[in-house]
Order: sequence, then structure tokens, then C-alpha cells
Amino acid sequence: MTEPALPTPGRTRFETELQVRPDDLDMMQHVHASRYLDYVLAARCDQMARGYGMGMEAFLARGLGWYTRVSHFEYHRPLRFGERFRVRTWIQEFFKDGVRVEFEILKAANGKLAASGWCHFTLVNLQTGRAMPLPAEVVAQYAV
Amino acid sequence: MTEPALPTPGRTRFETELQVRPDDLDMMQHVHASRYLDYVLAARCDQMARGYGMGMEAFLARGLGWYTRVSHFEYHRPLRFGERFRVRTWIQEFFKDGVRVEFEILKAANGKLAASGWCHFTLVNLQTGRAMPLPAEVVAQYAV
Amino acid sequence: MTEPALPTPGRTRFETELQVRPDDLDMMQHVHASRYLDYVLAARCDQMARGYGMGMEAFLARGLGWYTRVSHFEYHRPLRFGERFRVRTWIQEFFKDGVRVEFEILKAANGKLAASGWCHFTLVNLQTGRAMPLPAEVVAQYAV
Amino acid sequence: MTEPALPTPGRTRFETELQVRPDDLDMMQHVHASRYLDYVLAARCDQMARGYGMGMEAFLARGLGWYTRVSHFEYHRPLRFGERFRVRTWIQEFFKDGVRVEFEILKAANGKLAASGWCHFTLVNLQTGRAMPLPAEVVAQYAV
Repeated sequence: MTEPALPTPGRTRFETELQVRPDDLDMMQHVHASRYLDYVLAARCDQMARGYGMGMEAFLARGLGWYTRVSHFEYHRPLRFGERFRVRTWIQEFFKDGVRVEFEILKAANGKLAASGWCHFTLVNLQTGRAMPLPAEVVAQYAV
Repeated sequence: MTEPALPTPGRTRFETELQVRPDDLDMMQHVHASRYLDYVLAARCDQMARGYGMGMEAFLARGLGWYTRVSHFEYHRPLRFGERFRVRTWIQEFFKDGVRVEFEILKAANGKLAASGWCHFTLVNLQTGRAMPLPAEVVAQYAV
Repeated sequence: MTEPALPTPGRTRFETELQVRPDDLDMMQHVHASRYLDYVLAARCDQMARGYGMGMEAFLARGLGWYTRVSHFEYHRPLRFGERFRVRTWIQEFFKDGVRVEFEILKAANGKLAASGWCHFTLVNLQTGRAMPLPAEVVAQYAV
Repeated sequence: MTEPALPTPGRTRFETELQVRPDDLDMMQHVHASRYLDYVLAARCDQMARGYGMGMEAFLARGLGWYTRVSHFEYHRPLRFGERFRVRTWIQEFFKDGVRVEFEILKAANGKLAASGWCHFTLVNLQTGRAMPLPAEVVAQYAV
């Protein structure tokens, strides 16, 4: 028996504007490399609710969560003290039990690319901690 | 009816040695002021298990947790890149539903005081989020 | 010879709205106690520029910085996943070489108090790391 | 004229043992995905001094620093409350102006793999912020 085919997502790009906090800065006065993933996750949480119409709380209420399986970041231009930036993300591909999200982080002042990359997120049953196939409802909501 | 009297704790001082991580540094190349509380909490978690013989996991297993009610920090000398330091803490006083923990953070190289202060921690029932009287078992274990 | 008298500040209250990031949450699904200081510092940086008209960059350009000397936090109600909140701060008092800033952190949804407290910040010469008297220009700008 | 050939590094593997701090945990009670990069950077700082004999301070004293150009993380098993782990890193390859560092993060209790991946770090002149060719001295010290 074959797996049901997964649709190709619509790859709609959503954007969230954020601002650098002083505690994000490192001793070089740039944002710590690790904070860019925090920014992507913050933007996804905003966009899950606002963009796809099914936010993190809706997953938690069903006993589901998302784990980061892979993260890949390319750092182009440092973000600095108090800087505003936009995190643009989209679902590039559905997997049986997850999604590949691609992103760009753009300086608000001039639109230049600060960082780009992708993450692979896996849907998990929070009781067991095991990956699980994307429910049809999730695919429908996130296929935009 | 009167409350049962709480004992005066033995005020044994426990120490945990830690090291500054690069992500703890701010743009002045000092440890962020907020990280000192993270250091105190990390040291308490170590000392609850190792010093008092009843670690955080033992509380969680009983459905109990500790919330920080008040924190008071005085910053004396900045900790810097890669620096080692000792966090010395003790219970100064029992409350009906919590403890007052006092602490000193000392530079490992020369014993000089980097920070000092105190926290008031409240014991809570994690199901309800409400404060609860310290069980006799906890008082016994932590009265050293 | 006597010190010149410091004025009583106008105690104008400034507000900055911020939002909880997922990386601010702890294992209890509340904001880490230490992040509230990060929020106060982020709000002050915003308000120094926007409220007092002399931002952190203006201090750095003069070789000056602000160190946190004391922080005192009372935690009233936990902030949670994605929650919006307002950080209200004001200068309660001038010292010869610093300021006492008081603050309230309010839940945006209902205006209830999440945390309150005060910090003592000291002005330092970044070359020497030594505290220095507040220049007249700073007192003038911050006396509102 | 041709570039001088870069040696193949000896790929000696260095290890640093660290422990999860409570502030590293997320609302799932696992270490935040972003903290693994903080752990790798902390381990590299330790190993630069202890393993290669030329620590971060030696670079800063020459006006040099390292920027993270790319980070790639695969998350295998979550680290949890208070867990100890070893960060094993090695230089896989020299570039004209940087290094490719590969790493494994292993649970101390059983040696199982928590995360693995690689980073590309670029050497920069801190005055200009520009990448610069690895000095012969650095290549010699880091070729082990």
C-alpha cells in the first residue's frame, strides 16, 4: 500500500517584524549567532496563528508539538543594537511527519539580507515524544 | 489556632563552581546583569540535589515546583569572558510557603565578590499554580 | 565645598510594548525570572532615545555607558507564551553618579501587574570603567 | 601568482564537558534548539586555549575575531534538566580565510549522540569587520 501523496505547499511568504533586544548582543556588539534561530522560531509562532490560522496553542491543545530536527543558517550581515528586522518564512515542502521551512531575515532599514536558511520541523505526539504523520487538517491549513 | 512554628534553618553554605559562557556576555564584554540570576538558579538546582538531598526532580515528581517571588541583586565586579566563579548560597529563613535564599558570587581566581543578594522562592502546587505550606519533609531536609 | 544639588526628576512615565519570545519561556511554560530584567533594559533603551531624546548611542559616542548596580524584582503574575506586555519606567531619583529607575510590567490584555521593582544604574566612563558624576547635559535631558 | 596551498588539518578531536543550565530549557522541558550553538561556541573557546594553545584572547589582542558564517545542526536526542554532555569538535578543513569545524554533542551518561553538525567560521579584522587570510601562525597552531 502506498502512502497518500502530500500536496506541494503554496509557499506563501509571511513576514513578522521584530527588534533586537540588548540581551541578544555579543561582545562584538552584534547579535549572537544563536539568536537568529530564536528569531525564526518567534516569527513562526506569530505566523502559525496569524498566517495559517492554526497557532501553537491549537497544536498543544491536541497534545502535539513541533521539534526542530535540522537548522541551517547562513549569516550575511550582522544585526546590531536596537535594529529592526523582518523575518520572512514559508513552507517549502511537506514531509510525511514534518515540514521544511525556509526563511530570510531582512534589515528593516534597507531590506538587505542579514541571514537566510532553512529548518526541518517534525510534528510530535507530546505524550510519547514520537514523530507522527501530519494530520489532514494540518496539511489543509498549512498548504497555502 | 496558631501556625506550627517554623525552625530556624542551619544556614549551611553550599558552593557550586560555574564558568561564563560566551553567550552570557553583553556588548560591554561583561556578563549580562540578567545572567547572574540564571547562575544562582543553576547553582541552587545543583545544591538542592547534592547539598540538601532532595533535588528539583523530587519536587516535580510530587507535583511541586518553586517560583521566584522576589530577586535582589547587587553587582560588585563584572565577570568576564570564560571566567570561573563560585556561587555560594544558603537558606536564611523559612516562611510558611517558601524560603529566603541568600547568595554570594565569588570570582574563582581571587575570591573577590562579583555579586550578592537574596531571592524569595515560593513552593507551588504545579496543578493549581498556588502557593502551599512547606511539607514537614521539605523543612526537615532543608533545615541543615 | 558642597556638591551642586541634584534636581528632583519629573518622573514622567514612559511605556514600551513588547512580546514574549518562545526562547524566554522556562520548563514551567512561564517567562524565566531572569528575562524580566532583559525586558526592562530593552524598554529603557527604547525610552532613552524616544522619551528622553538621548539614546544609548549618544552615550556610547561620548565614551559613556550605564552599568546595573542593583536590581530588585517582585514577580506578581507570570507572563506566558506569546503574551504582549507594557514596560512602564521612570526615574525616581538622581544620584551623583546614577539614577534610580522604577518600573512596572503590565499584561497588555488586562493591565494587570506582572512584575514591579527598581534598578540603580551607574554612569561609567567606558575607558576606565569608573563611575562618573552625571554631566549637566544628562541631568537636563533626563529631568523630565 | 597562485595562493599558497593550505595544509590538511590533523583533525584532532577535542572534548569539553558542560552541563545544561535551567535557563537553557524550553517549555517542552528540553534544551532550546538555539542553545546547542551556544554550547559549541563555549566548547570551542575552551578548546582554542586548551587544545590549540592559542585562545580567543590571543586573537583579540591582535585585533582579530571569528565570525560564524554558516551553522548546520542536526538534533538527534534532546538534552534535559541538569544533564551533562560532551562537545567534541575538530577542524575538518582550512579555507583561505576560515575553518570548517565539525562537532558532535554526546550525552555524558551513555555517550549517545544528542546533536551533530558543522560551522564555518571566518577570521575577521575587528577594525574593518572584513575577512582576512589566515596568518601562517594561526594555520601552524591549528593544523594539529
